[in-house]
Amino acid sequence: MQEIYLDNNATTPLAPEVLEVMLPYYREYFGNPSSLHKYGIEAERAVKEAREKLAGIFHVKTSEVFFTSGATEADNWALKGAARAMQRKGKHIITTKVEHEAVLEACNALQQDGYEITFLDVDEYGKIKKEDALGAVNDNTIIVSIMSVNNELGTIYPVNELAKEVKSKKEDIIFFTDGVQAFGKLEIDMEDIDMFALSGHKIHGPKGVGALIKKENVRIEPLIHGGGQEIGLRSGTENVAGIAGLGNAAEISYENLEKNRKHIQTLKDKLIRTIREIDNVRINSPEDSIYSTVNAAFAGIPAEVLL
Amino acid sequence: MQEIYLDNNATTPLAPEVLEVMLPYYREYFGNPSSLHKYGIEAERAVKEAREKLAGIFHVKTSEVFFTSGATEADNWALKGAARAMQRKGKHIITTKVEHEAVLEACNALQQDGYEITFLDVDEYGKIKKEDALGAVNDNTIIVSIMSVNNELGTIYPVNELAKEVKSKKEDIIFFTDGVQAFGKLEIDMEDIDMFALSGHKIHGPKGVGALIKKENVRIEPLIHGGGQEIGLRSGTENVAGIAGLGNAAEISYENLEKNRKHIQTLKDKLIRTIREIDNVRINSPEDSIYSTVNAAFAGIPAEVLL
Repeated sequence: MQEIYLDNNATTPLAPEVLEVMLPYYREYFGNPSSLHKYGIEAERAVKEAREKLAGIFHVKTSEVFFTSGATEADNWALKGAARAMQRKGKHIITTKVEHEAVLEACNALQQDGYEITFLDVDEYGKIKKEDALGAVNDNTIIVSIMSVNNELGTIYPVNELAKEVKSKKEDIIFFTDGVQAFGKLEIDMEDIDMFALSGHKIHGPKGVGALIKKENVRIEPLIHGGGQEIGLRSGTENVAGIAGLGNAAEISYENLEKNRKHIQTLKDKLIRTIREIDNVRINSPEDSIYSTVNAAFAGIPAEVLL
Repeated sequence: MQEIYLDNNATTPLAPEVLEVMLPYYREYFGNPSSLHKYGIEAERAVKEAREKLAGIFHVKTSEVFFTSGATEADNWALKGAARAMQRKGKHIITTKVEHEAVLEACNALQQDGYEITFLDVDEYGKIKKEDALGAVNDNTIIVSIMSVNNELGTIYPVNELAKEVKSKKEDIIFFTDGVQAFGKLEIDMEDIDMFALSGHKIHGPKGVGALIKKENVRIEPLIHGGGQEIGLRSGTENVAGIAGLGNAAEISYENLEKNRKHIQTLKDKLIRTIREIDNVRINSPEDSIYSTVNAAFAGIPAEVLL
């Protein structure tokens, strides 16, 4: 029996060609990017190239790309860093009830620090009502944080439209999106989005590396202070191999975006047809969910057996 | 001319045998440790084994080992996490003027948050006076943070003695040490030390991974919230390959501790003798500095040329 790995929203296998790009930074070019000798310079070049690749994909400046240890750190940093930088303007944050735990728990921590959080309700497909989001905006609102694509249902959120509309209600709102499940699968439009968090290991890149895309005009405080890496906003010796791998995986994803989309959509359609033939099963993902996710409930089958 | 790499305090080359240990987690065992299928279980096992190795080296429980993205994160987490958890008991922290930037800048950030920081003076060898440290303890002191070994001079601090004595002055003080330059080079005694930060890439392990050793009875708040990894205290999908590499590099370092010490001490002695034959040069490291570090000043030679 051939096995099929269906847990790509949790993590993806590292692409062999991405590993090939990483290996030289584990072997020859092991320097610290902050060191001025040739081992450091080669390492710095790798980080610079990865940054240029992400900047190209997002159509932002290289100074708007910040490498982190993953999306969880990027989510925490975006929310806590912006909340701290903006606290004199207000302490109200709007998000949804179905964000990734990194966003939900960062918001809970901020709530304990005296911030007020509105967690927007969702319908059975994980969708929010636009009027709920806009209706929640008040004079104290500083951040709106809505994910791009839901990790469990595949629901796509109209983040660009939402960003534009909340900002037309209150200009200085920072719009952040946890983009983990959209990155590498959809074209990203950063026009009205101020910050976007992404992960390497969801797009056949390595674990332990991610990034925060942050527009230049958005002020956030560091979460991790120290030696001043990443324009002083995220310190710590760079995970050079991981960053090179992330850059490469991102490049491959976007070069093959249309091909992958068609291929995976075909697989999804087939999987849904097959699932529908089984009794007692319900498809939870909305009709217009992302092509890469299917959520189905199998009544009466324990989760471990199903797995 | 043969080149010699002398920048091991900035970063070390990854040991080829450590890379071999990491590769299976980039190739076959790519699962998310939180997933219940076999790809996840193999990944979880790797993290567990690395945790056991570190616990063995530090003679602590496995539940006292927390993986991070590096020592900079571990330093920030230890200081900010403990400061937040202890803020009702007091807001005074004691450290030195010659800590790594991660500690200095985390303390500066805490100072901006209303904490009072005492930065202890040092002599020309980077040494602090014990009476200064003890004299700085007051009723509001919650944390004493003193590095184990200075990264620039190689100065070894008597952290165990200091920990014992500050606690005899005020029992509930948390003693934290940035142990980056001691880890893998000295035996570590955690009896009176509450938290110890370490890095992978200083001991021929990979960049982008480190750990905080934290005693069970020490309460700290998370720096990075989310999915609840690392007993809920440090969220984010584990950097499985990096963690496996760190565990392996640590094991190798401690298996070869005496052999390495002898070998490197011989090299250091020879380097010092050679440097002393040059005019206008001063050795800055103290006589009793760690065997792995030499700091010398070459008068009149620009740093780039020297490099």
